[in-house]
Amino acid sequence: MNGGGVELLNAGNATALFHSVDAFLFDCDGVIWKGDKLIDGVYDTLTFLRSQGKKLVFVTNNSSKSRRQFASKFLSLGISVSQDEIFSSSFAAAMYLKSIEFSPDKKEDGKKMIELKENPFLEHDKTVGAVVIGLDQYINFYKLHYATLCIRENPGCLFIATNRDAVGNMTDLQEWPGAGCMVAALCGSTEKEPIVVGKPSAFMMDFLLKKFHVDTSRMCMVGDRLDTDILFGQSAGCKTLLVLSGVTTLPTLQDSANNILPDYYTDKVSDLLQLLRP
Amino acid sequence: MNGGGVELLNAGNATALFHSVDAFLFDCDGVIWKGDKLIDGVYDTLTFLRSQGKKLVFVTNNSSKSRRQFASKFLSLGISVSQDEIFSSSFAAAMYLKSIEFSPDKKEDGKKMIELKENPFLEHDKTVGAVVIGLDQYINFYKLHYATLCIRENPGCLFIATNRDAVGNMTDLQEWPGAGCMVAALCGSTEKEPIVVGKPSAFMMDFLLKKFHVDTSRMCMVGDRLDTDILFGQSAGCKTLLVLSGVTTLPTLQDSANNILPDYYTDKVSDLLQLLRP
Repeated sequence: MNGGGVELLNAGNATALFHSVDAFLFDCDGVIWKGDKLIDGVYDTLTFLRSQGKKLVFVTNNSSKSRRQFASKFLSLGISVSQDEIFSSSFAAAMYLKSIEFSPDKKEDGKKMIELKENPFLEHDKTVGAVVIGLDQYINFYKLHYATLCIRENPGCLFIATNRDAVGNMTDLQEWPGAGCMVAALCGSTEKEPIVVGKPSAFMMDFLLKKFHVDTSRMCMVGDRLDTDILFGQSAGCKTLLVLSGVTTLPTLQDSANNILPDYYTDKVSDLLQLLRP
Repeated sequence: MNGGGVELLNAGNATALFHSVDAFLFDCDGVIWKGDKLIDGVYDTLTFLRSQGKKLVFVTNNSSKSRRQFASKFLSLGISVSQDEIFSSSFAAAMYLKSIEFSPDKKEDGKKMIELKENPFLEHDKTVGAVVIGLDQYINFYKLHYATLCIRENPGCLFIATNRDAVGNMTDLQEWPGAGCMVAALCGSTEKEPIVVGKPSAFMMDFLLKKFHVDTSRMCMVGDRLDTDILFGQSAGCKTLLVLSGVTTLPTLQDSANNILPDYYTDKVSDLLQLLRP
């Protein structure tokens, strides 16, 4: 094991963790579900934690859905979650723009393609003041060109990334390029770095603290990624629990090149329930 | 002017440069042509240099054409250039693979798209041993996913970039995202760095020196980009001439953040002819 300090979750430290924490923050993809399938035992675990008075918060870098759509997804999987308990990176991007009093009266997106005829020229809207980029399965040259023009040529245009996850379990069968792929593409063409609002950026935590009055030392961040979830939790002073049901494997955790070490690790969220109620 | 040493080309230093150089290395896009238009005075300048016994070499990061196709493009613009005088980044990629005795018996490309049905899974060829990426106007999620799978999952798979130009004058009307955009996207999803064979990498120079027996101190690299052309020339010990007919503007050259300084700069290639034959 790299470094020291990472403990496999067991009955003893699970009980201590449970009593020292008032709020559990969960990542969703790879923790709560994979694709459209709930991970085994999640329902019972969340139900138990709620019954014990723990606050539940869902903090996801997935930018493909609104808070309402996330609540619907939870409901379709049999779990009742309030929109207020959901913090997604798309919501964070909207909150970020609101926090700087940016009025988004313009929006440009969709599945436009560019036809590369002889000597094409793309007219872009010079009043666009912010480009927000996240995971986009419909990424194409038109969008990259349009966004590049706005960022490079519109004075003061903001470049905001929902997150920079390299890959993600868009489905439960394999890993797919994540938002980090599209964000990097724009970094490559603009030679600029974005403002990141999703994990591990502290922005979502700042916003979350305004909503939930819990000291971060009494929070536990539960996630499947070291460089987003665990780093996010650690930076904020939360306890951290890595689950191996998503992107991170045990060899990755133990690799000598890895320097992000959670307090605890376990296979999946429901291990917590098993250990607390053997 | 940032630093010292950069001289505007004038009759005196142009004459000195001319006599101290046996070979002129030219970038193409933004130097020889913009899109499909020859830049003013290029024909006369090249004709003059040849008539004076200077070797001409064309070193381009443009990976969209084969050497033969580049020679055809020159011919269609009225300039006769031998294939042997053309060094493109796609040629460099092929030469790189040859130099490591890689046998490219497999090729995967085209305009495939992925249909994002429920729980899709992309089967990839686990024998793919190299991914070569350059400028791709048909970039899409399928290609990014396929390339990411090969680089991440095929043991020893090479990740080769033709070049990392942020933007380029694909046409003469505006700048478009360059290979650097697509390369960065794959860096983002794979969390790996590519082997770059185009400028400013020394690979093309090593290969060029095997063909042309000219000492690099008696070469002049003429280009429109600081971070590719000028850096490439400087690293090899060539004299360097920046032309402002392409990507780099005078304010960019003079910006205090810029630390790549050519020996000389001028508006366009034909200034050389004007100054030598006033």
